[in-house]
Amino acid sequence: MKASVSIRATALGPDGAREVTRALPEEVPVAVTCNGTTQAVMMCTPADLEEFAVGFALTEGYATPDQIERVEILEAEAGIEARLWIAEEAAAELGARRRAMLGPVGCGLCGIESLEQALRVLPPVSARTTLTRAEAAGALDALRGHQPLHDLTHAVHAAGLLMPGRGIVLAREDVGRHNALDKLIGAALRAGIDPAAGAVVLTSRVSVEMVQKTVLAGAGLLIAASAPTAQALRLAEAAGLTVAAFARGARVEVFTHSERLQGDQTDVA
Amino acid sequence: MKASVSIRATALGPDGAREVTRALPEEVPVAVTCNGTTQAVMMCTPADLEEFAVGFALTEGYATPDQIERVEILEAEAGIEARLWIAEEAAAELGARRRAMLGPVGCGLCGIESLEQALRVLPPVSARTTLTRAEAAGALDALRGHQPLHDLTHAVHAAGLLMPGRGIVLAREDVGRHNALDKLIGAALRAGIDPAAGAVVLTSRVSVEMVQKTVLAGAGLLIAASAPTAQALRLAEAAGLTVAAFARGARVEVFTHSERLQGDQTDVA
Repeated sequence: MKASVSIRATALGPDGAREVTRALPEEVPVAVTCNGTTQAVMMCTPADLEEFAVGFALTEGYATPDQIERVEILEAEAGIEARLWIAEEAAAELGARRRAMLGPVGCGLCGIESLEQALRVLPPVSARTTLTRAEAAGALDALRGHQPLHDLTHAVHAAGLLMPGRGIVLAREDVGRHNALDKLIGAALRAGIDPAAGAVVLTSRVSVEMVQKTVLAGAGLLIAASAPTAQALRLAEAAGLTVAAFARGARVEVFTHSERLQGDQTDVA
Repeated sequence: MKASVSIRATALGPDGAREVTRALPEEVPVAVTCNGTTQAVMMCTPADLEEFAVGFALTEGYATPDQIERVEILEAEAGIEARLWIAEEAAAELGARRRAMLGPVGCGLCGIESLEQALRVLPPVSARTTLTRAEAAGALDALRGHQPLHDLTHAVHAAGLLMPGRGIVLAREDVGRHNALDKLIGAALRAGIDPAAGAVVLTSRVSVEMVQKTVLAGAGLLIAASAPTAQALRLAEAAGLTVAAFARGARVEVFTHSERLQGDQTDVA
């Protein structure tokens, strides 16, 4: 299955109608299963799905990469199955959580049974990586060179990992910004790259879930093109995550834990 | 709870650092319950939540507006509960679906147990409303006048209902584009406005879920600022929904069922 498709459209304007061709992103249901049990169905761009499954398993708390024994990607008629085979211990814990969820109060969307769980307390960030102001401000410009599906469709999000003094070392794309970040996290972990050594860079806004995923991946910095939500900043402040946004040209705004962006431009390694 | 919050940030640039204030959107977990059972937890902007609950109940298939007896919005410490009290018949059907979901295959994220359900067959669109090309092309410009939270934060999406010859008659905003559309649908239904008489206008891209919600609300036209996905267009084509995108100035591109946009500019009522 391809990540983009050429589609005919009719362009209407003051000068009449004409046929045009657009490259549009593909979107397909991906069922993530753990040891044969469906955990989630996500709408994804069909690319890098093994990495997506590994990242999603980590940020949803199904299994850490060392607990994943095998990943299989199977194309079915109605979508794609991403089958994870995880260690007995992780499967038992997931089964217990699942049974607890199915009580009389109900399971709730996304497996989150209660409001408390939606804003779950995050582990404190221990990453000490810092960036220069110039690196942070230029993060989105740096990511632009790693967005081939965006270049084609102008309709997908990207997540990248920026390393101090090295620029973007890894980037992934998806129609969904959450998926792009899960793909990036899975790709980093599978490649043996520690997210704590870099900054997560996003083409999107920063919502609660983007903060949760970044912290659970171990990164200490999150740099975005667009605005954070107030709630996302509360979580980031409490967890110790640096959130910067509106990175453009030589400018960027820092909202939490600015201590990781204290260097001058001359500090570049 | 307010829909936006003033937050201090540090703006970094070539000329040094200075303090700035940004208005950022709020984002809060909203648990939607039906007759006491949690169905879903969504991250929403805390505004128009009664309308959100009514729209969400329709597009998720919990209950139609006439089956909803009461809506209560309760602020809890960790978020907001949107409590729906629905007719016995709808509650029984929802309970049966829920029990079916909890079988050995698992419930899946968002209550969608299988890939087939993610691309569920939609009821055919029966709406015959048409727009002139000029109305369709100008839809996003028309919506701009109805986005107060966007004007403040530049970080939320909007969904509007455009009526032939009347412009935007209703609009709602949210940090999440899906929520903005559910709020619009709930607002229209509560106000006795039939979505079939107008076009849904979105500031976002058009994913599968946006097509599903628009069709389930009964509208025959969907006009968006940004690109549709290929899968969204397949669903729209099959259901009979007109999808137009890249509406800007006097131009717009039509991807499916262009018969609802065949009028000339001189046809404006």
